[in-house]
Amino acid sequence: MKRQIRILDTTLRDGEQTPGVALGAEEKVEIALALDDVGVDVIEAGSLATSDGERAAIKAVTDLGLNTEISSYSRMRKDDLDLAGDCNIDSVNLVIPSSPLHISTKLKFDISNPAQKEAFFEKVVEVTEYAKDSGLTIEFSCEDASRSSVSFLAELYQKGVEGGADRLCYCDTVGALYPELTKTIFTDLAFRVKAPLSIHCHDDMGLATANTLAAVQAGASCAHLTVNGIGERAGNASLEEVAVALDKFYKFKTGIDSSKLYRLSRLVARVTGVPIARNKSLVGENAFTHEAGIHVRDLIKNSESYEYLRPEIVGRKRRVVLGKHAGLSSIELALKELELTATDEQKREIFRRVKEIGDKGKHVTDADLQSITDTVLDLHHESVIKMKSFTAISGRPVIPTATVILDVNGKEIIQAETGDGPVDAAVKAIQKAIVSIGDIVLEEYHVEAITGGTDALVEVTVRLSGKSDMVISKSTGTDIIEASVEAVINGMNRLL
Amino acid sequence: MKRQIRILDTTLRDGEQTPGVALGAEEKVEIALALDDVGVDVIEAGSLATSDGERAAIKAVTDLGLNTEISSYSRMRKDDLDLAGDCNIDSVNLVIPSSPLHISTKLKFDISNPAQKEAFFEKVVEVTEYAKDSGLTIEFSCEDASRSSVSFLAELYQKGVEGGADRLCYCDTVGALYPELTKTIFTDLAFRVKAPLSIHCHDDMGLATANTLAAVQAGASCAHLTVNGIGERAGNASLEEVAVALDKFYKFKTGIDSSKLYRLSRLVARVTGVPIARNKSLVGENAFTHEAGIHVRDLIKNSESYEYLRPEIVGRKRRVVLGKHAGLSSIELALKELELTATDEQKREIFRRVKEIGDKGKHVTDADLQSITDTVLDLHHESVIKMKSFTAISGRPVIPTATVILDVNGKEIIQAETGDGPVDAAVKAIQKAIVSIGDIVLEEYHVEAITGGTDALVEVTVRLSGKSDMVISKSTGTDIIEASVEAVINGMNRLL
Repeated sequence: MKRQIRILDTTLRDGEQTPGVALGAEEKVEIALALDDVGVDVIEAGSLATSDGERAAIKAVTDLGLNTEISSYSRMRKDDLDLAGDCNIDSVNLVIPSSPLHISTKLKFDISNPAQKEAFFEKVVEVTEYAKDSGLTIEFSCEDASRSSVSFLAELYQKGVEGGADRLCYCDTVGALYPELTKTIFTDLAFRVKAPLSIHCHDDMGLATANTLAAVQAGASCAHLTVNGIGERAGNASLEEVAVALDKFYKFKTGIDSSKLYRLSRLVARVTGVPIARNKSLVGENAFTHEAGIHVRDLIKNSESYEYLRPEIVGRKRRVVLGKHAGLSSIELALKELELTATDEQKREIFRRVKEIGDKGKHVTDADLQSITDTVLDLHHESVIKMKSFTAISGRPVIPTATVILDVNGKEIIQAETGDGPVDAAVKAIQKAIVSIGDIVLEEYHVEAITGGTDALVEVTVRLSGKSDMVISKSTGTDIIEASVEAVINGMNRLL
Repeated sequence: MKRQIRILDTTLRDGEQTPGVALGAEEKVEIALALDDVGVDVIEAGSLATSDGERAAIKAVTDLGLNTEISSYSRMRKDDLDLAGDCNIDSVNLVIPSSPLHISTKLKFDISNPAQKEAFFEKVVEVTEYAKDSGLTIEFSCEDASRSSVSFLAELYQKGVEGGADRLCYCDTVGALYPELTKTIFTDLAFRVKAPLSIHCHDDMGLATANTLAAVQAGASCAHLTVNGIGERAGNASLEEVAVALDKFYKFKTGIDSSKLYRLSRLVARVTGVPIARNKSLVGENAFTHEAGIHVRDLIKNSESYEYLRPEIVGRKRRVVLGKHAGLSSIELALKELELTATDEQKREIFRRVKEIGDKGKHVTDADLQSITDTVLDLHHESVIKMKSFTAISGRPVIPTATVILDVNGKEIIQAETGDGPVDAAVKAIQKAIVSIGDIVLEEYHVEAITGGTDALVEVTVRLSGKSDMVISKSTGTDIIEASVEAVINGMNRLL
C-alpha cells in the first residue's frame, strides 16, 4: 500500500522571507486559494509576531474557510502564542532553537551545562503546554536541527511530545544536510520518537529536493515546501519537484493535483515578483522546450526520445524554439504545433527566414515565428486595431508622455496619456483609444531580464484579458517602448 | 586517501544547447580561459558537426594552448570524426545511442533481434576504432543510458573498451535517475566495466546534483557539469554545486579553485545571456543575502547562526538587504558592511527612511541605502558629472533620439545622439558628452526581469570600466530610461 505524505506549503512564510518580497493580505489570499486548489494539506500563512498587517493577512486567509489546515510560524514565546487567537489559525509551527549555537544565541542557555539543559527543557515543555492549552495543533519544529546531535534531538522531541506536540519537524535551517546523512538521521529518529516527523530543507547546496526525498523514504510523513523553491537565501525545497518525484520515482501518495502546478508556479512568480529561472525543472520556461535540430527530428518520430516526463504532468505543453541549431525538421514540428500546413517550398522559405534570425545569435520567439508563417503562408489576419504612429517622450524634468494614432475599425483615433514611464504612458494611451470597442485589461507585463549592451534585444510578454478570454502576446526588439506597444496591440487584436 | 574526481565542463556544448543561446568563437574563448583558470580537467568546447563556424570556434579554443584537455562532441559517425583534425582537439566525447528507443530511432537497429544487436555492436566497435586511429582520447558516452538495462550497457561498454575507449560515460539524457537508483546502477557498473566511468546528468526533476554525487560515491571518477547548470531543457548538473559538495560533504578532491566560481558564474551569465535565479544555490543573488530582522540580529552576534557555508568559499561576500522585516540590527550590520559609523540618532533616521521604502512592499537596493546613508551621515561625494536635464524620444516612425545637458567639472555640455532605442540613445549621448574627461566603457547593461504592471519598478545594473578600474552601479525607478541614465552617471562619478 502506498504511504500518504502530507505537504505543508510555506510559500507565505518562508517563501515571503525571500529578500525583497513582501506580501499583503490580498496577495496572501490569492496564493492561499491556489494552494488549496492544488491540494496541499497545510498552508503556513505567515508569522504571528511580524506586525499587525501580517496578522490581518493571516486572518484574511483563515477567513476563507478552506478545508486546508491553516498554520502560522511562532517563536517559542507565550506572547507570540497569545496573538494566535486573533488569527483563528488551526495549527502552529512552533519553532524551537535546537542547536547549541541557536540555543545559546537566542535563549542564553548553555546546554553543555546539565542544569541549564534541564532549565531549557522545562521552558520547552512549558511553552508547548501553553500552545496546547490554546487549542492549537502543534508542529514542534526544531530549528537548526542539522547542527545538533541526534541523541539531543531525540530528548528534545520527547519533551515536545510531553508538552502535547502533535507532530515533530526537523529543520535543516542552514542547508547542512546531504542525502545519505539525511537518511541516517531519519532512520534513527523514526525509531526513537513518538510522533509523526516532518522535514524542512533549504537549498544552499542544491540538495533540498534530494534531502526531502531521502527523509521521506527514511520515515518522514510530511514535507515543508515552497512554490518555485523560493525562501531565504537559496530558498526551500520546491513543491513541484518533491510532489512530482514522490509520485513518479518513489510511488508515495500526496494530495497534490500536479496538473495545476504550472499555473500555481506562474501565479507565485507574478505575485512575489521573483522570476523563475529558465532552466528550473518542471516550471522553468525551458523545461519542456526543445531547440537543437537533431533532438527535434527525433521528437517528431517519437515524442519520448528526449522526454522522460510529459509536460502535461504539470499542466504544460511542449514548446519548440528555433535558432542556431534549427533544421527543416524543427520547422515541420513548429508548424505541426501551430496546426499549420505548408508546401515544401514554403517550409524552405520559413527555414531561410528563421536561420536569418538564428545566425545573428538570437532565438526566434513565438511572435517571430507567427509573423514569418503569416507572411510566407499568406495567412490573412484582419486586425481591428492598426498602429499608424506613436511618440513617447521621457526625461528629467519631463513628465513621461505618449501619443498614439490608431486605426480602430477604420476610424482614426488620437490619444495622449502620461504615465510612470514612457512604456506606461504609451500603454495607457492605447487603452484609452480602444475603450469604445471593448474593455481589455493588461493583467501582466513582463520583460525578460536583459543582459548585454543597451542595444540588446528586449523580449516583452503581456497577458491581456477581455470579457471572457485571455491572451499572451510577445514582442521583441531593441526599443523597449516599441516592443511593448507591439505586444499590446498584437494581443488586443487576437482578443477582438 | 582522498579520491580525485575529474571535472568535464560542457558549458560550451550542452550549455550552449540551452534554447536561445548561441556562442561565437570570441565568446567560447572567453569562457574557456575562465574554465581553465578555475581548474576544470576537460573543456568540451562544442560539437564537430554543427557548422563551419562551430569548428572555427573549437579551433580558437584549442589554439589557446591551455593545459586543460579540450574535447568535442561527436556523433557515432566517421564523417563527424573526420572533422576532428581541423579542430586540433585532444579528446572526443563519442556519443553512442544506448537505449532501445534511441538505437532504433537514430540507427534503425532493433536490439531485441540478436542479429541486429550484433550488427549494432560491430558498428560501435568500428567507429570507436576509427576514432582511436585518429589519435583521439575517447570518452565513450552512452546516450539515454538511464532508459537502458544495466546488463545491456555492460555489454556495450565492453565493446567500447574493445574499440579502444579510454573512459566510459553514463548519460541520463532525459533526467530519469534518482539518487538511490543511480547508486545501484553505478555500484553494479563499476564492478562490471574495465575503464573509468563518468556521469552526465540532466536536471528535469531537480536531482542532477544529487544524482551526480551518488554516482561519484558509487564509483564514477568524472562528472560532466555546466556553469550555472545551464543546458537543454532544465539544464545539467551545475559545476559550482557539485564541486563544493564533493569537497564539503564527501571529502573528494577536485582540481577546482572554488573561490573563482562566482566570477565564472557571472561571466557565463553575461556571455550566454541566461540570467541566474536569485535563489540559485551558491551563485544566486540571494544565496548569501539576509533580510529578516531576527536573523540579522543573530548574524551580528555570530555570523555562523544562519550560514553553514561562508560566502568566501565561492569568492563572494555576505549581503544584507533591508525591507519589510528589517530591524535596527539590520541597519547596524549594513553600516558595518559599508564600513560606516553612525550615532544612535542617525541610525534611527536611516531606519525610518528604510522602513518608508519597505512599507511600500519594495526592497531597499544597495543604491538606495548608499543614498540614504550619504544624506543622513552627510557624506559629501563631490560629483564630477551632474545631470542637469535630459530628454529621450521614441516612437514609430521616429528615430530614437536623446539629448542630455550635463555639468561636467562645472562646464555645461549639451549632446544629442540617436540609438537602437531611447535608452541606447541616452547612454550614447552621455558617453559623447564626457569624452573629454576620460574614456569610460559600458561593459555590461542589465535589467532585472520586470513582472507586474507597466508601472512596476525597474532595476538597472551597469558595469563600467575606466582605465584601470571597474565599477558596478544600480538604479531603480519606474522609468527605465531615467533609471538607466542615473545608474550610468552614478557609476561614472564613482570611477572619476
